[in-house]
Amino acid sequence: MSGLATVIGDGQMALVTADALAVRGVGVRMWSPFPAEASTLARTRRSGRLPGFELPAAVDVTSDIGAVFNGVNALISAIPTQFLREVWQRLGPQMSGEVSIISVTKGIEIGTSMRPTQVIEDVLDRTRTPTRGFSLTALSGPAIAAELARRLPASLVAASKSDTAAQFAQDLLRVPWLRVYRHSDVIGVEIAGATKNIVALAAGMIDGLEAGTNAKSALLARGLAEVARLGVAMGAKLDTFFGIAGVGDLATTCFSPEGRNRTCGERLARGESLDSILSSMTSVVEGVPTTRAVMQMARAHNVEMPITAAVHAILFEGLSPRDAIRELMSRELKAEQVG
Amino acid sequence: MSGLATVIGDGQMALVTADALAVRGVGVRMWSPFPAEASTLARTRRSGRLPGFELPAAVDVTSDIGAVFNGVNALISAIPTQFLREVWQRLGPQMSGEVSIISVTKGIEIGTSMRPTQVIEDVLDRTRTPTRGFSLTALSGPAIAAELARRLPASLVAASKSDTAAQFAQDLLRVPWLRVYRHSDVIGVEIAGATKNIVALAAGMIDGLEAGTNAKSALLARGLAEVARLGVAMGAKLDTFFGIAGVGDLATTCFSPEGRNRTCGERLARGESLDSILSSMTSVVEGVPTTRAVMQMARAHNVEMPITAAVHAILFEGLSPRDAIRELMSRELKAEQVG
Repeated sequence: MSGLATVIGDGQMALVTADALAVRGVGVRMWSPFPAEASTLARTRRSGRLPGFELPAAVDVTSDIGAVFNGVNALISAIPTQFLREVWQRLGPQMSGEVSIISVTKGIEIGTSMRPTQVIEDVLDRTRTPTRGFSLTALSGPAIAAELARRLPASLVAASKSDTAAQFAQDLLRVPWLRVYRHSDVIGVEIAGATKNIVALAAGMIDGLEAGTNAKSALLARGLAEVARLGVAMGAKLDTFFGIAGVGDLATTCFSPEGRNRTCGERLARGESLDSILSSMTSVVEGVPTTRAVMQMARAHNVEMPITAAVHAILFEGLSPRDAIRELMSRELKAEQVG
Repeated sequence: MSGLATVIGDGQMALVTADALAVRGVGVRMWSPFPAEASTLARTRRSGRLPGFELPAAVDVTSDIGAVFNGVNALISAIPTQFLREVWQRLGPQMSGEVSIISVTKGIEIGTSMRPTQVIEDVLDRTRTPTRGFSLTALSGPAIAAELARRLPASLVAASKSDTAAQFAQDLLRVPWLRVYRHSDVIGVEIAGATKNIVALAAGMIDGLEAGTNAKSALLARGLAEVARLGVAMGAKLDTFFGIAGVGDLATTCFSPEGRNRTCGERLARGESLDSILSSMTSVVEGVPTTRAVMQMARAHNVEMPITAAVHAILFEGLSPRDAIRELMSRELKAEQVG
């Protein structure tokens, strides 16, 4: 495939996406907002954020913001949710020509309750030269980065209001280990992608309490029900939550030992403090800020989300995981009576 | 709790249910159709089918069919699906008084396409003295027996056409590590319980091919969609498949290393023959006959079930797991476009 793509970010998803694009035969630039990290990555081709992974030599790593849009027709946005607005405020005025933006961020912005593609659109509407066009696609699905780094097979969805844009993303990522399907429910795909990290925090706590796979699976089922309730209240299609971007992503996030959110929950339940866990991790644990943002949304839309509320109480209100999870298991599952 | 309950069977679920009933304070009799196994179990309190588990001394183990209904008001039926009819044909004429029958069998009878509670009802309608009344409840949910044997927490559903019967089951199994919720969709709960073993066979193959958690989670999502389609065609409620007896049971069966169906799939993908795997296992792998039965149902009701068809082709038509799973992953997931 011809063309030039820029990956925005230097985290796990940025690295594995750059790898796929390089194999696809696209010219790949990787832009990091951090000059020191960009230069280390450019030299060593290694990142502490993804042990064992080697960035292909063909990927050009830079921290020069002038290079981001230069000759580029595709842009992968792989910035953690709470930094997305700040980064795009710098990028917007640089935009030139038509560009297809593919967002891999999974979270909800605190304060605005915006989904990642909403944040990007909001910023670009204020900052770009109005004649510069762009399309937006959310790329999601069961995609633990540590597995993508080993090029293990994964199925993803490219969700866009424009089927042409979704088709472009599908074609851009056509490599042997990825299978990208088009999807039209952007709201559902992004809400599912954000909220699964909250359920994964709770699932990790069940692991930390050594309560077993039966208990974790019951939690997964109830978690799916509550995030689908929120999604539907936000305008998503219910079906999306039962697809690969819904229950598929939820399952891998709750069960892969390599998931960051699950691991964070497990360490919390083993007695570590949140501060100590987060400061020891080289990557952002999206579920933590997402829990705060989703609690705001649940209240605003009057949606009952007992698992999210329990995770919120553990993270920010000092409740012990043991008490909260026990209380949750004994209370929430009564809902099954409705079935 | 007062009363006397008989557990029919000596497999994994029979053992862990007897354990719960003994702790509940119910008088427990355990009836095995096999005199030699009954006497070994009575003496050693151990079973090769559930290593590490010790049957409480209070459980009275017998192979005397005259004892099954003697003074008993509750009966747990824990016989593998394809032996259910034969065993109940022996039991039916012995029935005396009113009895609440709770079925923990997960499968579909080959030939008749009947669910376990349908088989029991069918046999009893022909064989019992007509004045002997009974109620039927299906007990299901994420319940890997090896975890129940360690008394790890689990959530179950008791599904019955009679809420009184479901309530009885709920009360009968009120022990600290079990939480039983009432459910009214017997069809959905039993179809979900049967079919999850087919998806687990495929999930195990993905493990055997070392394709990773992302791929397995995508398969879980597509498996859920196809078994829900069958369920709805049979008269089940869609919601049931998204509850703990649906996606909850599916998740634990696909992810617990201790699941028999998952393990069987993994060994198949590593190159062992089905005959060699089954003859080495001390317990019935329900997914194998269930695959045959569900393929019949899918054809009869004209429901597309590509994962079931792939598992059927691997088990009974000599297809290699590698080819079948690869073909499945590349074809079936296109359905996501519909979302």
